[in-house]
Amino acid sequence: MTAGQTRYVSTARLEAFSDGVFSIAATLLVLNLNVPGGSQGLGAALLGQWPSYATYVVSFGTIGIIWVNHHSLSAQVRYVDRVLLFLNLLLLMVVSVIPFPTSVLAHYVSTDGDSHVAAALYGGVMVVMSLAFSLLWLHITRGPLLHEHMDSQRARQEGRLFSVGLAAYVAGIALAVVSAQLSLLLYALTAVFYVFPWLPEAAPARTEPSPGQAE
Amino acid sequence: MTAGQTRYVSTARLEAFSDGVFSIAATLLVLNLNVPGGSQGLGAALLGQWPSYATYVVSFGTIGIIWVNHHSLSAQVRYVDRVLLFLNLLLLMVVSVIPFPTSVLAHYVSTDGDSHVAAALYGGVMVVMSLAFSLLWLHITRGPLLHEHMDSQRARQEGRLFSVGLAAYVAGIALAVVSAQLSLLLYALTAVFYVFPWLPEAAPARTEPSPGQAE
Amino acid sequence: MTAGQTRYVSTARLEAFSDGVFSIAATLLVLNLNVPGGSQGLGAALLGQWPSYATYVVSFGTIGIIWVNHHSLSAQVRYVDRVLLFLNLLLLMVVSVIPFPTSVLAHYVSTDGDSHVAAALYGGVMVVMSLAFSLLWLHITRGPLLHEHMDSQRARQEGRLFSVGLAAYVAGIALAVVSAQLSLLLYALTAVFYVFPWLPEAAPARTEPSPGQAE
Amino acid sequence: MTAGQTRYVSTARLEAFSDGVFSIAATLLVLNLNVPGGSQGLGAALLGQWPSYATYVVSFGTIGIIWVNHHSLSAQVRYVDRVLLFLNLLLLMVVSVIPFPTSVLAHYVSTDGDSHVAAALYGGVMVVMSLAFSLLWLHITRGPLLHEHMDSQRARQEGRLFSVGLAAYVAGIALAVVSAQLSLLLYALTAVFYVFPWLPEAAPARTEPSPGQAE
Repeated sequence: MTAGQTRYVSTARLEAFSDGVFSIAATLLVLNLNVPGGSQGLGAALLGQWPSYATYVVSFGTIGIIWVNHHSLSAQVRYVDRVLLFLNLLLLMVVSVIPFPTSVLAHYVSTDGDSHVAAALYGGVMVVMSLAFSLLWLHITRGPLLHEHMDSQRARQEGRLFSVGLAAYVAGIALAVVSAQLSLLLYALTAVFYVFPWLPEAAPARTEPSPGQAE
Repeated sequence: MTAGQTRYVSTARLEAFSDGVFSIAATLLVLNLNVPGGSQGLGAALLGQWPSYATYVVSFGTIGIIWVNHHSLSAQVRYVDRVLLFLNLLLLMVVSVIPFPTSVLAHYVSTDGDSHVAAALYGGVMVVMSLAFSLLWLHITRGPLLHEHMDSQRARQEGRLFSVGLAAYVAGIALAVVSAQLSLLLYALTAVFYVFPWLPEAAPARTEPSPGQAE
Repeated sequence: MTAGQTRYVSTARLEAFSDGVFSIAATLLVLNLNVPGGSQGLGAALLGQWPSYATYVVSFGTIGIIWVNHHSLSAQVRYVDRVLLFLNLLLLMVVSVIPFPTSVLAHYVSTDGDSHVAAALYGGVMVVMSLAFSLLWLHITRGPLLHEHMDSQRARQEGRLFSVGLAAYVAGIALAVVSAQLSLLLYALTAVFYVFPWLPEAAPARTEPSPGQAE
Repeated sequence: MTAGQTRYVSTARLEAFSDGVFSIAATLLVLNLNVPGGSQGLGAALLGQWPSYATYVVSFGTIGIIWVNHHSLSAQVRYVDRVLLFLNLLLLMVVSVIPFPTSVLAHYVSTDGDSHVAAALYGGVMVVMSLAFSLLWLHITRGPLLHEHMDSQRARQEGRLFSVGLAAYVAGIALAVVSAQLSLLLYALTAVFYVFPWLPEAAPARTEPSPGQAE
């Protein structure tokens, strides 16, 4: 055996299962968009559903960001141990539940009183997701699973970046007391924040099987 | 490292996530087909649901076409950069929403007045999808991501082909003012148009890992 | 380039997209199983839903069979051409719709009159599926796409095997005039028929990338 | 051909289809979480839905465990035969149905009388799942499919571990007579039980394609 790539189990199937959950959770969000009925015209009814569209975009974007970060993280893993397997399942369990708080927030964002609860629920799920991601990240960067290429300074920088998300979601819960719509805006900005490259591109940590490599 | 195939991140996982979203969005379309109830016979009730079947076929076909084109495009990519990652997420966000305008169009295509709005909504989502695809295509063909094999004349030809789709969807929105059913027909013909091989088959841009290659 | 494996496009992504549609269509069948309400006890209500369970098993099994056959078929393909791409999309469009006739049949199998229509609809979708599969099979076995290992006698045997399914579904539609429950039984037996190995195992047509192969 | 890895058909596509079903079945569980309506406040209504959350976590965790075990099992398989193909389909058919008993249990866990039936239904589905998994395991460990690395003592240890799950689900059905909530607790503890590493990590049975291996 070479290069430690296949100790215990393959990262390939972990990624396949994770990619499945990420893409399904993101795609199921569309089920929150319902055909409007009622007596008003369709145009007005569609416009009146703006919270459904806004929450769709924010949640799809957020799941996309988590997927991108999961992508980077798993590329730095040399092999999968049992703890990683179950921390990953924990993260997926939270990611997979995202359509639920999304739907609650879409439904209640303009309702007096209940809107605060709905925005706090959304933030709460995101806090749990951030904590699950942090656990996964800590387990990988603190142990023998980390690829040798990965330097520890980079790991610290990434850790700080993840803390921004966690802090933003906690702030979103606090903001929910004032206004659910402001909370939703903060959740949107958090997703947008991660689109920008705050860290330099990491050197490729894991080399894919490539037939020409032996040349 | 060889051949630039693994700089930054792997295209393999980008494709896995994209394939997941494409196949789920296509398969979720079936949820728009409901068991008919009511007092008329089942045969008549099933026939009366023809807009659901027509829109199912058009949207499934359209998602299939986007997948085929995405397939060709990503085969020409040497590596994935951050911009590509997020433009791809943008495209997937629009593809994943397709079941919603499909369902609205199926429901309203025979309703006076609202049918125009429904057909325009469908076309509008497809215009946004075309624009997202064009952005992705421009980013890939104008930069260092493009595989060297890919010649620039071919890229221009493909660009013209994508413009046909965009123009057709804009025309579909205009046609929606006249008749939603004509719009739907145009959307169907647009999908059929892409089935035909307007361009010669591209030479394979990316060679898959193949064990015999070293021979 | 070697061995013809990568001419035009990769079969790997065709299989990934197809596997996605197969597994999603099969898993969406569970959405036809609803929590029973009503005044009777839960036990009796659950038992009264037997048509939902029976159609779930028959449709899941049928999709599983199609997947197995698709598996064998694509293993014999040397490369993917445009016609194969779109015939495959046609097959997937029909497979993906299976949850709909399943749901209709589950709902109406014990309803006088409408049960005949429901059973015929189910058989009709399966006939279209069989025809799409046959087109795919004909395109592959009659052309240059077929792997050289595959001998033409084997191809003829397989062709006869697929005809059994087509004939069974046509018979199921005819039987629907008599009894929807008999039709359902025939659809179940058709799936069971394919579980048995009527043909000897084919020699492996496509060799997977395997690193040691060059030794 | 080398190493027996590609006799008959590839395990890669079996895993892809299985991973698809596992991840979709797990992710569809979120559809059991509904936006609460009614006149009480949203906070109270959300708290009142605790059975939905509890059953979501237990079922997601259980599907995750089955996936991990399926993962280990298929890593020990040298090639896929027809019986394995269909036993695997049987397992997937049961895994895919899990959202249904989950939804029934969530709905009835606090209802007098019917709660017993709901908890027994859940346990019954899990018993069938355990039996299907055992059949798969027996077929693999008793025949030529098993990788040579896999020693028979290890196989016996694993067999005993799977029996624990089967016994727990049978006990859960018996406990359902007393209290559905106690049954649910036992189902939860069964999932937690499998998180711990009762057996030492197996040596890697199947070596993934790794380019450096030939060095």
